[in-house]
Amino acid sequence: MGKIRFNLSISLDGFLAGPDQSLESPLGAGGEHLHDWAFPLAVFRAAHGGEGGIANASTQIIEEQTANVGAVIMGRNMFGGHPGAWRSDAPWNGWWGEDPPFHVPVFVLTHHAREPLPMKGGTTFHFVTGGIESAVAKARGAAGDKDIVIGGGASIARQLLAAGHVDEINITLVPLFLGSGERLFDQLGTGLKLEQLRVIEAPGVTHLKYRVVR
Amino acid sequence: MGKIRFNLSISLDGFLAGPDQSLESPLGAGGEHLHDWAFPLAVFRAAHGGEGGIANASTQIIEEQTANVGAVIMGRNMFGGHPGAWRSDAPWNGWWGEDPPFHVPVFVLTHHAREPLPMKGGTTFHFVTGGIESAVAKARGAAGDKDIVIGGGASIARQLLAAGHVDEINITLVPLFLGSGERLFDQLGTGLKLEQLRVIEAPGVTHLKYRVVR
Repeated sequence: MGKIRFNLSISLDGFLAGPDQSLESPLGAGGEHLHDWAFPLAVFRAAHGGEGGIANASTQIIEEQTANVGAVIMGRNMFGGHPGAWRSDAPWNGWWGEDPPFHVPVFVLTHHAREPLPMKGGTTFHFVTGGIESAVAKARGAAGDKDIVIGGGASIARQLLAAGHVDEINITLVPLFLGSGERLFDQLGTGLKLEQLRVIEAPGVTHLKYRVVR
Repeated sequence: MGKIRFNLSISLDGFLAGPDQSLESPLGAGGEHLHDWAFPLAVFRAAHGGEGGIANASTQIIEEQTANVGAVIMGRNMFGGHPGAWRSDAPWNGWWGEDPPFHVPVFVLTHHAREPLPMKGGTTFHFVTGGIESAVAKARGAAGDKDIVIGGGASIARQLLAAGHVDEINITLVPLFLGSGERLFDQLGTGLKLEQLRVIEAPGVTHLKYRVVR
């Protein structure tokens, strides 16, 4: 059975997204800078249909993040679009265009039922209304022996952490201050026990890998 | 002129101290485990009048922390004891016994005036009632060309960060969850710009060094 893991970038003050998230600013004010480390990388550009770029100590992180993935779980806010019930007149099909960079089944936790949405390149969005346990079960079924990646946002990652479903935590710590917004490690109590597995010093950021101890 | 710097240990959820701080539990519930990485080190034991111990990748951090220090600034809560005015009948002289591990002038920010308190080994506690600007000026005078270390707690470190007095931030990131308590990086807005200088992967913890960019 594969691992359930995530690789999320947070600010030094702990935020996964800044304040005032919106359709125009899905990561909130300043939040896009949490990912400045990834944009110049050739491996990141290639995964998102681009070309060119560089290699550095962060390259390995993108490679690991995208290797051996059998399914993705994400929250409705990360899938994006409008709040409330899905619109049939102008359907929101995600941020990622016709060929999203997942290439596996993606399980979107939502309160609003919707038919599965197949995209190009192997990505199919499945809309799960039964809560996180249902999403984990469906993702396991789809992933087989491969890993399940938690795409985000913070709320889904926290819920899965609190419910004991996460095996591995990968954090990219970005030395900037967002001041407010959505904290990743918040209201999680004291029950989580971690083992530090690896630290990578990369240009401008630090990549941390932890195993959840059971 | 020396740097103003601090080296503080925080939990993965960002806390410098756990909840329910008291005389018996000055670091709050679970907070003492933020320092488990330091206790086995020979260099730490020697600095606190003990003996024995080991060396590992964290040794360098303790050495740097204690080298070239000309003065220390700390908050009243870190100095400890009772709240309110100082008691002349049973004076609180700090947590550290007769020979505190500072060996330099220590400026304690407080609302309550008190005569300087000389201890053994070169430590003298000076009680500053004029606020952080006054404490910084007095510490500069005492430190000469050497560095000023911010001993803590979180409130003093935050105030000095917000006022632009901090040159270097050293964080030991400890992969545990305190759940609540005092956050170090909180309510700091978005104005602080940092440059990542160095990362050290040590047994069980990560040591991060940042320069504040002006």
